[in-house]
Amino acid sequence: MRAEILSCGTELLLGHISDTNATFLAQSLSSLGIDLYYVSLVGDNQGRIVETLRRAWERADLIIMTGGLGPTEDDLTREAISALLGETMQVDPQLEAELRANFSARSFPMPERNLKQATLIPSARALPNPRGTAPGWFVEKDGHRIVAMPGVPHEMYPMWEEEAVPRLINSENGSLFTRIFRVSGLGESTVEERLDELLHNTNPTIATYAKSDAVDVRVTAKAEDRQRAEQMVEGVEAQVRRVLGHHIFGVDKDTLQGIVGRYLSERQQSLAVMESLTGGLLASTLTDYPGSSKHFIGGVVTYSTDLKIQMGVPREIIEQYGVISAETARAMASAVRQLLKADYGLGVTGVAGPEMQEGQPVGTIFMAIAGPQGIVDGRGPGWRGGREDQKRHAVLASLNLLRLHLEGLR
Amino acid sequence: MRAEILSCGTELLLGHISDTNATFLAQSLSSLGIDLYYVSLVGDNQGRIVETLRRAWERADLIIMTGGLGPTEDDLTREAISALLGETMQVDPQLEAELRANFSARSFPMPERNLKQATLIPSARALPNPRGTAPGWFVEKDGHRIVAMPGVPHEMYPMWEEEAVPRLINSENGSLFTRIFRVSGLGESTVEERLDELLHNTNPTIATYAKSDAVDVRVTAKAEDRQRAEQMVEGVEAQVRRVLGHHIFGVDKDTLQGIVGRYLSERQQSLAVMESLTGGLLASTLTDYPGSSKHFIGGVVTYSTDLKIQMGVPREIIEQYGVISAETARAMASAVRQLLKADYGLGVTGVAGPEMQEGQPVGTIFMAIAGPQGIVDGRGPGWRGGREDQKRHAVLASLNLLRLHLEGLR
Repeated sequence: MRAEILSCGTELLLGHISDTNATFLAQSLSSLGIDLYYVSLVGDNQGRIVETLRRAWERADLIIMTGGLGPTEDDLTREAISALLGETMQVDPQLEAELRANFSARSFPMPERNLKQATLIPSARALPNPRGTAPGWFVEKDGHRIVAMPGVPHEMYPMWEEEAVPRLINSENGSLFTRIFRVSGLGESTVEERLDELLHNTNPTIATYAKSDAVDVRVTAKAEDRQRAEQMVEGVEAQVRRVLGHHIFGVDKDTLQGIVGRYLSERQQSLAVMESLTGGLLASTLTDYPGSSKHFIGGVVTYSTDLKIQMGVPREIIEQYGVISAETARAMASAVRQLLKADYGLGVTGVAGPEMQEGQPVGTIFMAIAGPQGIVDGRGPGWRGGREDQKRHAVLASLNLLRLHLEGLR
Repeated sequence: MRAEILSCGTELLLGHISDTNATFLAQSLSSLGIDLYYVSLVGDNQGRIVETLRRAWERADLIIMTGGLGPTEDDLTREAISALLGETMQVDPQLEAELRANFSARSFPMPERNLKQATLIPSARALPNPRGTAPGWFVEKDGHRIVAMPGVPHEMYPMWEEEAVPRLINSENGSLFTRIFRVSGLGESTVEERLDELLHNTNPTIATYAKSDAVDVRVTAKAEDRQRAEQMVEGVEAQVRRVLGHHIFGVDKDTLQGIVGRYLSERQQSLAVMESLTGGLLASTLTDYPGSSKHFIGGVVTYSTDLKIQMGVPREIIEQYGVISAETARAMASAVRQLLKADYGLGVTGVAGPEMQEGQPVGTIFMAIAGPQGIVDGRGPGWRGGREDQKRHAVLASLNLLRLHLEGLR
């Protein structure tokens, strides 16, 4: 089955809201194994809605519309469907009774303009809306279907799941299963080069996506049922893991801070950080993980050199090697481990920009971990970007180093 | 001018991400007075991209495309534009040199597939992308324009504002001038209530936008030249400032951390922070400001109670009032001021969630400033949201309190 989404509302075209309804529906269609090829956003203009609806009717079996079911003159979804199909809207006595009862229950007089929310056309049946005044429309004609629902998410989501999906599902669609492999320490194009011909697979499909905190490798299989689709994904998982190895730090919704947090919590070990160029972002990222208070003691943002020394970094090391050095990163890790009495200390120093520092270029990053097994260190990936990007990449490199260390790989 | 947006990426049609790029662009087009009639989302399929692009070309003067500029086979935006216009992509020697330099700077070998990011067609000029490897395309042909930009928001937003908008505006008849008034401490609906009938102005137009770090009031005037448009904006500025008063902390690209940083640098004063629920985000936000090393000494992320005491918060205060209290926030501010020898100490404590703490609800925030004029404190706005939202709002409330204090208003 081929589906299209048509989202109606001038507020979408003014940027007052994002079309998260389309995201919700796209996810649901994907899990139902229904192909979605187009999403269109149109304002409250009947000509443009009908034009877009007609094109969708020509190329799709299922059209899902959201918005435009309110009582005002700007709400044109029913009118557009009626115009497309050449049918006339008529008040349905039962819907009218329900609508009037709905207003009575709230002790509101019903404005007469609301009566159009009680209309149907011959090809449409009503989708009940216990959370609002506008029922949806479920239209079937000539082998095509249109599902029209309110734009308000808390009315639309349950209408879709409780009313529309059961009417659609009694067919032959099959099921999809997706697993995401999250990769750190490799760029997207390197990941693609390693995956090589796997990217040409048709079922399961394999694709890469650059996210702000990782590169995602998404494997999606289509089969007659979910279990079989999952087996197919698992069939290629070994290949993906073989070429990407320890660069895969997790799956699906895993984050580096979540993985690190889980290891530390499980082992009842604690972490403290001393950071300079990342300016607090390392601690903040660690504390984005809801369980972080169990393992994260705290951190010191030593933006000034004096403060590094005050917090336990030996002055001689800074004088001999400079603030931007592997030795200082190691000393920061050791100092914060000792000062905050943590099992692991993590130190990060470098140049966030915009200017060079101590003759070192922007993007230089030194990081180190002090722990029960001694000290390991690493250099950041280098990066040309804005100041905030430098900080973000330094944080990710540091968390990845810690993750590898906790896995015994560094 | 009539615009359309075409967002490319299969991940949009699978619901893995929402098309917030379209929201951003729609807001910007609205403030520029450019009409947006359609937004289309299409997957990584050349036939469907070209089909949708051709229709947009027929009905719009300006097409804005996002996504599909990466180095992989799935990235088809350049190919689709070339197919639409019947032009051939060729490697541009200067773009190639820049691309190779970009990879060298990061000590990465450049995969050869990246070379297509250095291509142009005769109708296209490159839009520089200092934040990534893919330049955009600015296409002009037969009175139509196409702006093609990367899908990654942190590359696309600045490319749009710094590169695309100036090229679009200069080529228009007449001129636009926009000034943004940045508001902290009031919600968007309160701002709208106060602006009241100003929102019905037609020239200049006045509109509000809720941003992650402030509410923006955007005033845009259209006139025969820029100077006249600027005068028109200034004509309503006094009215806007009268109703919003000291809640306006800056204009255009000002940020709270930038304003605070500017005050402190001008006065040659220094700042240190002690934070718990914000977990490092306060320090990180302060250090997003490029000149922050001049005034920001550093911070302490005292996630554990013991660490607060170790860093100078009197144990008796925590025992008597609890960690989540105005008294502890005041003690944190004083302690970090003293420990780090700063002119100002800023302390923040509260409940980030997901669980209550000491019987206080999620969203409780206490903050305090210790400085040469003594101590001031405040309570956070309270907030129902996710953990990261709580942290962000606590940071904004703290920075705003400091800003007001430095302006002599608190």
